[in-house]
Amino acid sequence: MDPDAPMYTDVSDVGEFGLIAHLRDALGPDLPDDVVTGIGDDAAVIRQSDGSVHVHTTDALIEGIHFDRTFMPMEHLGFKLISVNVSDLAAMNVSPQYATVTLGIPKNITVEHLRTLYEGIQKGCDAYGVTVVGGDTTSAQALTLSMNVWGTAEEDAVVHRSGAEPGDVLCVTGDLGASYAGLKILADERNRLEEEGEDFQPALDAFPYVIRRHLAPPAQEASIRRWRNAGFRPSALIDISDGLSSEVHHICEASDVGARIFAPTLPLHPETRNVADHFGDDVDVYAFFGGEDYELLFTADESDLDALDGTTYTIIGEVTDAEKGVLVEQGGGTAIPMRPGGFDHFGEDENSDAAE
Amino acid sequence: MDPDAPMYTDVSDVGEFGLIAHLRDALGPDLPDDVVTGIGDDAAVIRQSDGSVHVHTTDALIEGIHFDRTFMPMEHLGFKLISVNVSDLAAMNVSPQYATVTLGIPKNITVEHLRTLYEGIQKGCDAYGVTVVGGDTTSAQALTLSMNVWGTAEEDAVVHRSGAEPGDVLCVTGDLGASYAGLKILADERNRLEEEGEDFQPALDAFPYVIRRHLAPPAQEASIRRWRNAGFRPSALIDISDGLSSEVHHICEASDVGARIFAPTLPLHPETRNVADHFGDDVDVYAFFGGEDYELLFTADESDLDALDGTTYTIIGEVTDAEKGVLVEQGGGTAIPMRPGGFDHFGEDENSDAAE
Repeated sequence: MDPDAPMYTDVSDVGEFGLIAHLRDALGPDLPDDVVTGIGDDAAVIRQSDGSVHVHTTDALIEGIHFDRTFMPMEHLGFKLISVNVSDLAAMNVSPQYATVTLGIPKNITVEHLRTLYEGIQKGCDAYGVTVVGGDTTSAQALTLSMNVWGTAEEDAVVHRSGAEPGDVLCVTGDLGASYAGLKILADERNRLEEEGEDFQPALDAFPYVIRRHLAPPAQEASIRRWRNAGFRPSALIDISDGLSSEVHHICEASDVGARIFAPTLPLHPETRNVADHFGDDVDVYAFFGGEDYELLFTADESDLDALDGTTYTIIGEVTDAEKGVLVEQGGGTAIPMRPGGFDHFGEDENSDAAE
Repeated sequence: MDPDAPMYTDVSDVGEFGLIAHLRDALGPDLPDDVVTGIGDDAAVIRQSDGSVHVHTTDALIEGIHFDRTFMPMEHLGFKLISVNVSDLAAMNVSPQYATVTLGIPKNITVEHLRTLYEGIQKGCDAYGVTVVGGDTTSAQALTLSMNVWGTAEEDAVVHRSGAEPGDVLCVTGDLGASYAGLKILADERNRLEEEGEDFQPALDAFPYVIRRHLAPPAQEASIRRWRNAGFRPSALIDISDGLSSEVHHICEASDVGARIFAPTLPLHPETRNVADHFGDDVDVYAFFGGEDYELLFTADESDLDALDGTTYTIIGEVTDAEKGVLVEQGGGTAIPMRPGGFDHFGEDENSDAAE
């Protein structure tokens, strides 16, 4: 760069995906032949000498950015750390095997806090079949958690974002928007605590489901195990970490297809509806833009779904030709374009107000 | 814990290795049979179905803890990030193949900073034969870099800390204490800058070697490649990240042996001596306790060294029986016990004054 004419670009001006494109560019274009999937998917996929693939992901949780220690018990935080990583492997239809944990520890965190954190990690290890094999510990200004999780799979068992075909149905596991509803409740409690001081009475008991979905979300590792046992393989797959809308757009871009979502079919837990009512919000906004659900969004030939228990997924729409775009039908037959927004860690997105 | 009698333990009271023991304990004792080496070594070693092993390491660099952005150019920081990780694999006699990068980005870091950081990472990738296959980006309060590096190897090619035998020689690659000398110069410059303000004239030109060794240390990947080509395999191996003294003690503990170091043989660069003279320090303290050299400490049957170019290593001592302890001979035939201290990230060590 010419030092007389410096050009500085805020990360928020390019957003998370723009930044990733810049960083990939700085690394140069050459990828060895054995790298099936590099930067940009949920996980990296590398072909091994025995014909299987090594599938690897990494995800970080940072105090003040991803969680507020006031409302995040250490054990839940440990469980959430492993869930967000396992979810990225589930998003490739791969079961996890091993993990490493990197801890940045501020001065006000004790050994007891960290033991409790690790007990939460171990609960996740037990639930998902993971072994922690190493890590790194260091001091830091804010509690900083980074995890790597990997597993091996047959190459043709791995499912990418790019396999959706027009005519496929669009499905989700579980329900949507609950994590965001839980975050709204917790943030509201924090504000009340600050206002009321000693008079504060927590009112969390009314919303146990959504709070748990925010603090200790399960990853859908059990779903992909069921699929494997049933001989089912989706045509395209992604996990819902940044909100349904964002993930549908990712699949449509990678597969060069469009999609039509039927909003009335979105699976919503009664508590999620109650929270939206409580705040006077449109509950569909929680489902489309809330994020951190860690459910799976997948596409499939509808006849392939016969292999599955119908209570384990919901059909929410269909895959269309690319030129039709990504539409939401609210009922009554009219459809409007679905905004691509969702949670962006750098806050550049116009819709990020729904995820704060 | 009994909530009426809380017991809180500062991380600094147990130190880095005490903390790791606590965390391993919280994870429970069960390791699958395919985990050859879990938490506690430089890298995890996992047996794969084809008989080879997957060797995996992770290391983080955090602003304000591991580096000062005032004196750390972004490109050097990227190079150092990959070096510290590759060094952990070299410490197992394993060459790296793939990496992931996790970035926590504060608001005052621009896209241009990060591109330059990644150009430094790519320089390391080119030097060490590594491909970056993925990562995670998020916002953070301080610039937070975490990397994972892994490779595969034949199981019997992996060298652990535990193979040293009495009668082996103790050797190091390269020279010692230069990184700490560079840190002393840089810290001194920062203090002068703060005192002198506009009148400040940097005086870095006199010490290019030690400054480079601190800012952009190379990992000894080339050393282990040379060893492989020469058919040489050390009996025990570790990289010198926390200072020679700490690493000798690690090998002695893991191998159940003692060691006798001949201090006059320690390889020191002339610039390192000059810096110690400049500050009136004992240069041996830099070599024993300075840390961040990223050279390799290894033991071998002396006759096996015939396979190596004699300019690529220095014999600094010998392996003895465990009951003799770890001794330093300063010359003249008398030997004193060597303090185990070295750099500890949580500052509990009595010798940490040498590494600040």
